[in-house]
Amino acid sequence: MSATDDLSGYLIAPDPSARRLTRAVRGVDHEGRESEIAVVEERPLTIFLNGQEIVTAMTIGDYPEYLALGFLRNQGMLQDGEAIKGVDYDDDLETVVVRTDGQTSYEEKLKKKTRTSGCAVGTVFGDMMEGLEGVRLPEVQVRTSDLYALAHRINQTPSLYLQAGAIHGTVLCKGAQPLVYMEDVGRHNAVDKIAGWMLSEGAEAADKMLYTTGRLTSEMVIKTAMMGIPVLASRSGFTAWGVEIAQQVGLTLIGRMRGKRFMCLSGEERLLRDADPAAVPEEARKSGRKGAQG
Amino acid sequence: MSATDDLSGYLIAPDPSARRLTRAVRGVDHEGRESEIAVVEERPLTIFLNGQEIVTAMTIGDYPEYLALGFLRNQGMLQDGEAIKGVDYDDDLETVVVRTDGQTSYEEKLKKKTRTSGCAVGTVFGDMMEGLEGVRLPEVQVRTSDLYALAHRINQTPSLYLQAGAIHGTVLCKGAQPLVYMEDVGRHNAVDKIAGWMLSEGAEAADKMLYTTGRLTSEMVIKTAMMGIPVLASRSGFTAWGVEIAQQVGLTLIGRMRGKRFMCLSGEERLLRDADPAAVPEEARKSGRKGAQG
Repeated sequence: MSATDDLSGYLIAPDPSARRLTRAVRGVDHEGRESEIAVVEERPLTIFLNGQEIVTAMTIGDYPEYLALGFLRNQGMLQDGEAIKGVDYDDDLETVVVRTDGQTSYEEKLKKKTRTSGCAVGTVFGDMMEGLEGVRLPEVQVRTSDLYALAHRINQTPSLYLQAGAIHGTVLCKGAQPLVYMEDVGRHNAVDKIAGWMLSEGAEAADKMLYTTGRLTSEMVIKTAMMGIPVLASRSGFTAWGVEIAQQVGLTLIGRMRGKRFMCLSGEERLLRDADPAAVPEEARKSGRKGAQG
Repeated sequence: MSATDDLSGYLIAPDPSARRLTRAVRGVDHEGRESEIAVVEERPLTIFLNGQEIVTAMTIGDYPEYLALGFLRNQGMLQDGEAIKGVDYDDDLETVVVRTDGQTSYEEKLKKKTRTSGCAVGTVFGDMMEGLEGVRLPEVQVRTSDLYALAHRINQTPSLYLQAGAIHGTVLCKGAQPLVYMEDVGRHNAVDKIAGWMLSEGAEAADKMLYTTGRLTSEMVIKTAMMGIPVLASRSGFTAWGVEIAQQVGLTLIGRMRGKRFMCLSGEERLLRDADPAAVPEEARKSGRKGAQG
């Protein structure tokens, strides 16, 4: 399974040759041989909501506007229907400012919280869980033939993941078609960039699926649910709480998806098993990705 | 390479059978077979510094006191020589309060920052880089025979990593001896728990090495340098900025260490190549760990 250049159907595909995303680093291997290795970049990006500094994220640096929008949306700091006046990225200052019409409810809350406890860092997690209350995802059938086709296609798509490693990818898909493939050093940045793209495009969520190379932790499951996407699949493992939340919101959750193998942790009744696993080839060892753990 | 029960020389080793760390989760595989899988837990833990709420971390839940101490230390919120009066963990409230004699300089700074910008979230990263200024690690030789021996020994040690996956491990080592092996859902929690242990025990740093399963990003390199440990090795990849910071502070950095292979990115001149790579066996496929990516 080697990378092909067939990018048909993609709205956004990775661009592993982009100049700013990797740097040549000199290394010496176990036999003392010197070599130059293409290594992913990592840059700070400070996100502001109106006049409020929110967080500094470490990112490869592509799509800063989508990252900022998606981060604020997934943290519950931007609500549905909040009118976004502008998203301004400053390359030199390494900042993105998201501007809304008037103050957001989050800024109001932050002020109150800051007055009472002097700090707002701890609120983020509570806010995310709060945003999840009452969420029930639409019940959609998932064809295992689509799952296999997607995993195969995504593994063959040229990416920083295949070329340089030490990075995570998240792909927004519809049926057997990958649509938007984002990568980043943090697995959360990749999913936030997808959320930012969806918000900008007003994309429908109910007919989509999310595929990620990262683990299915509580935060990843919460983000997918907040985005309204009913299916989440990964080649990696999962945590107990991730599984519990998926069951609670009706998210179809599939982990350890490699070659013909997968494990369905939630939504088994929505799987349409229309593919014969015996006909699916084992994953070639080389698509086990380069130092991508972490 | 299967797990052995030889824990000689370890001061703290993983306890994969501990009741609270994993939960049995029901899954259905690609062939429709049901099974019960041991899956790692993930719990929120809110860390306070005196009266100040600092952060809510997601953790497997062991060693909460070390996690809190190490987190505060690695973020530069607790300085060297700050007198720690107590570390109180409350299991029901899922909180740890670290108490110092009098207010810390961080609390002072936080108040000022909160007054001026209304929020302190964004300061954390800046503080970490600030703490690094002028840091120059001691120059120590690293034997490749020790590197190989450590990787082999750590791979054979029973762990949540081998048993359940979806988790990261960090091991404090001296020569060829692993001493303290911590695991957690977040790779940063594992290294923070090591930092907390070192702070509690007043452990020497200059003669130690850190081995991690996670990627060598800027934050991981900064934390190791802040802890005063001169060598960092990983089975995973690295980022350009991680390599740059390692060179800047004189940290010996080794990545992609699997079987006989490794790549030295910084401190090549301090490697003592006393092992013949040809004599080191390739890593058995099964020690490629269960869904640990992420």
